[in-house]
Amino acid sequence: MDETEVHLMANGQQDPDLVLTQARFLDRLPADQRGPLHGLAIGIKDIMDTKDMPTEYGSRIYDRHQPSFDSHAVATLRAAGALIFDKTTTTEFAVANYGPWTANPHDPKHTPGGSSSGSAATVADFQVPLSLGSQTGGSVIRPASYTDVFALKPTFGAISTEGQKPCAPNFDTIGFFARSIDDLQLLADVFGLKDDDTPKDIPLDQISVAVIRTPFWSSGGASTHNTMNISINVLERNGIKVEDVSFPAEVSDPEVLGRVQDIIIQSEARVSLLPEYRLNKAKLGYEVRDIVENKPNITQEELRDAYDLHAKMRTIVNELAQKCDVMLAPSAVDDAPVGLDDMGSPIFNTLWTGFHMPVINIPSSFGPWGMPVGVSLVAPRFHDQQLLQTAKAIGEVLMADGIGRRRDAEGFWNTNW
Amino acid sequence: MDETEVHLMANGQQDPDLVLTQARFLDRLPADQRGPLHGLAIGIKDIMDTKDMPTEYGSRIYDRHQPSFDSHAVATLRAAGALIFDKTTTTEFAVANYGPWTANPHDPKHTPGGSSSGSAATVADFQVPLSLGSQTGGSVIRPASYTDVFALKPTFGAISTEGQKPCAPNFDTIGFFARSIDDLQLLADVFGLKDDDTPKDIPLDQISVAVIRTPFWSSGGASTHNTMNISINVLERNGIKVEDVSFPAEVSDPEVLGRVQDIIIQSEARVSLLPEYRLNKAKLGYEVRDIVENKPNITQEELRDAYDLHAKMRTIVNELAQKCDVMLAPSAVDDAPVGLDDMGSPIFNTLWTGFHMPVINIPSSFGPWGMPVGVSLVAPRFHDQQLLQTAKAIGEVLMADGIGRRRDAEGFWNTNW
Repeated sequence: MDETEVHLMANGQQDPDLVLTQARFLDRLPADQRGPLHGLAIGIKDIMDTKDMPTEYGSRIYDRHQPSFDSHAVATLRAAGALIFDKTTTTEFAVANYGPWTANPHDPKHTPGGSSSGSAATVADFQVPLSLGSQTGGSVIRPASYTDVFALKPTFGAISTEGQKPCAPNFDTIGFFARSIDDLQLLADVFGLKDDDTPKDIPLDQISVAVIRTPFWSSGGASTHNTMNISINVLERNGIKVEDVSFPAEVSDPEVLGRVQDIIIQSEARVSLLPEYRLNKAKLGYEVRDIVENKPNITQEELRDAYDLHAKMRTIVNELAQKCDVMLAPSAVDDAPVGLDDMGSPIFNTLWTGFHMPVINIPSSFGPWGMPVGVSLVAPRFHDQQLLQTAKAIGEVLMADGIGRRRDAEGFWNTNW
Repeated sequence: MDETEVHLMANGQQDPDLVLTQARFLDRLPADQRGPLHGLAIGIKDIMDTKDMPTEYGSRIYDRHQPSFDSHAVATLRAAGALIFDKTTTTEFAVANYGPWTANPHDPKHTPGGSSSGSAATVADFQVPLSLGSQTGGSVIRPASYTDVFALKPTFGAISTEGQKPCAPNFDTIGFFARSIDDLQLLADVFGLKDDDTPKDIPLDQISVAVIRTPFWSSGGASTHNTMNISINVLERNGIKVEDVSFPAEVSDPEVLGRVQDIIIQSEARVSLLPEYRLNKAKLGYEVRDIVENKPNITQEELRDAYDLHAKMRTIVNELAQKCDVMLAPSAVDDAPVGLDDMGSPIFNTLWTGFHMPVINIPSSFGPWGMPVGVSLVAPRFHDQQLLQTAKAIGEVLMADGIGRRRDAEGFWNTNW
């Protein structure tokens, strides 16, 4: 595709000299000083501070803004030998759901999803093998689904978000994009993700998968429904135990669940963005302004009740997740919408973000226009390493045997299987 | 007292030129551009970034560290016309409970408490009228009690902590020190603290106070016990309804409550400080090193269970708080310990921090060595403005009528009343 159609940089231009300087420095390092990510080029979502590249948070207020220090995540990558390759496009403060002209490498008429648009696109377009994104609602797993790459949103709180623009601190989670589970594993280890137990290599016929269509299932489009059904069929065909499981009553009403999470995210974002609003309201987009002005009139009582109910839901769903090896769920409402304005809905992701559970997107199938569709594998909190291990086994099965992945000569989705 | 004995600056020296430059700039501002804090000198705990003063986080790693941007809280104060007067001493990353040589202005042989040592001391010593601190366990309310000043720890999450060194993100809360409730009110309004309802001016004889001795009561020293009893007596004598209330069974075991909160704080601090540990372990104090190395061997399962149980406790205690106008509780285990190494225990504060409830320290009495002792007024989440209003009425009563405040000629505590 025409490279002008996929914009990956936040500030519109990369500094090639800076990349070469980093590369030469790394080349000169003696072998015993090389880190586990030695020389790996990594893209960084432009809401994370970088001491040597502008960081604009997708906001006009921060045009050419140059932090003097790396965010904790960037410092961790640099210390492990990574080559910080570029800043990747984000929507305004990773809050807005419109804005950037970054396109989907699979078809530039489609959105790559947001807010980590650039981080997904740059990995899908083979410009870098790895990138960092962040997810408050569905900003990692959904763009991964839209662009056919692997992604991990780890357990909430497992990686420090210091030096990263906050949106909703109870939801904000750093995530990774990659083209394989092995590459996700590299970052998981560098960031020190740790389970209590050493992950087990469970034989396929002993893996138990709970299919969670979630309370939002009826909002899902045909591609999402088909991909879930294909995936279930492929797993069963490979001897994996699959069982349909529903959320208990307290978490089963989509309106209540959606509203509770929306109240918390909007109320927390209001606090996070208040100083920008006060200092430079005119340069904020309407979505951000509406949040700070509390357009939906959310009361503090609603917020307090939402926190308490949400904490109960989190406990219930994590307990449910402990009854199986892994849960299978949709990664997005449908395949990537046409047009760069509609960045799609995070509805199938926000629930897991709020429940603080680790999620991996596995590229799984294609929709009728040849656009990718993924599925989510979900585990209880602090089972990130076991999730990676199980996802590797399940991912291989889905990738190898997923008949839906085989597009016919015209590029259309093949339903004859 | 000898001013060399109270160190208020993080880097050992203030820049008088910078203060004068700010003052002259503010003096020149036309009246219609002056903010609500115009010209007010404010001290800033040295874990909050300031673009014009070094910010060292109490850590040797960040010696002379100069951020290029203000933290959100500092930017908010500056935009309101405040004069950022100085950075105030903090313990290492506001995590350690030892370190700074900042003394208690009431008697330099005693600690002012930590970790916001400098913020409390500088207000108590009349060097500035207001200061910002932060509380993860008891780092605002306890030093306020030790140094005889007013302080507000607002509802968790009500003020953005962006640009502030994180410790335990589910507990970290910005707080204010002042010498009156009116001054606390100034900052509450500038930071946009907002209840659903306009605060009511409740007549004294209609205020209902629930006395919560907390599950830690038996750990309290004589000064704390006496001050609580004196305060209760003063309130009753002034026609205020006072009732002893205990926490429900789920929150009544001091070992369980203490352990649950400790697990969360230590586990979150481990994540927050991991990058510093990796980059410069040799320059960390033993307390920080022990946390990152997980010396107490806290498992992820314990953390997950702690989160869930703690969320339940938070709901229960907030519901309890809604049955009265305000709760009265101890502000510290005892008066300020002798020596600058023992900074005292946060045990009577951490519970409220974790329950996300607003707390005000009211200077109330003096212990046998003439050291101050405060009491805490506590309200449900997002009732900060009502708490300020009620605390003003109760505070006036306690300050005017608190016979314990009248020290006899020898400076000893007068118990004959």
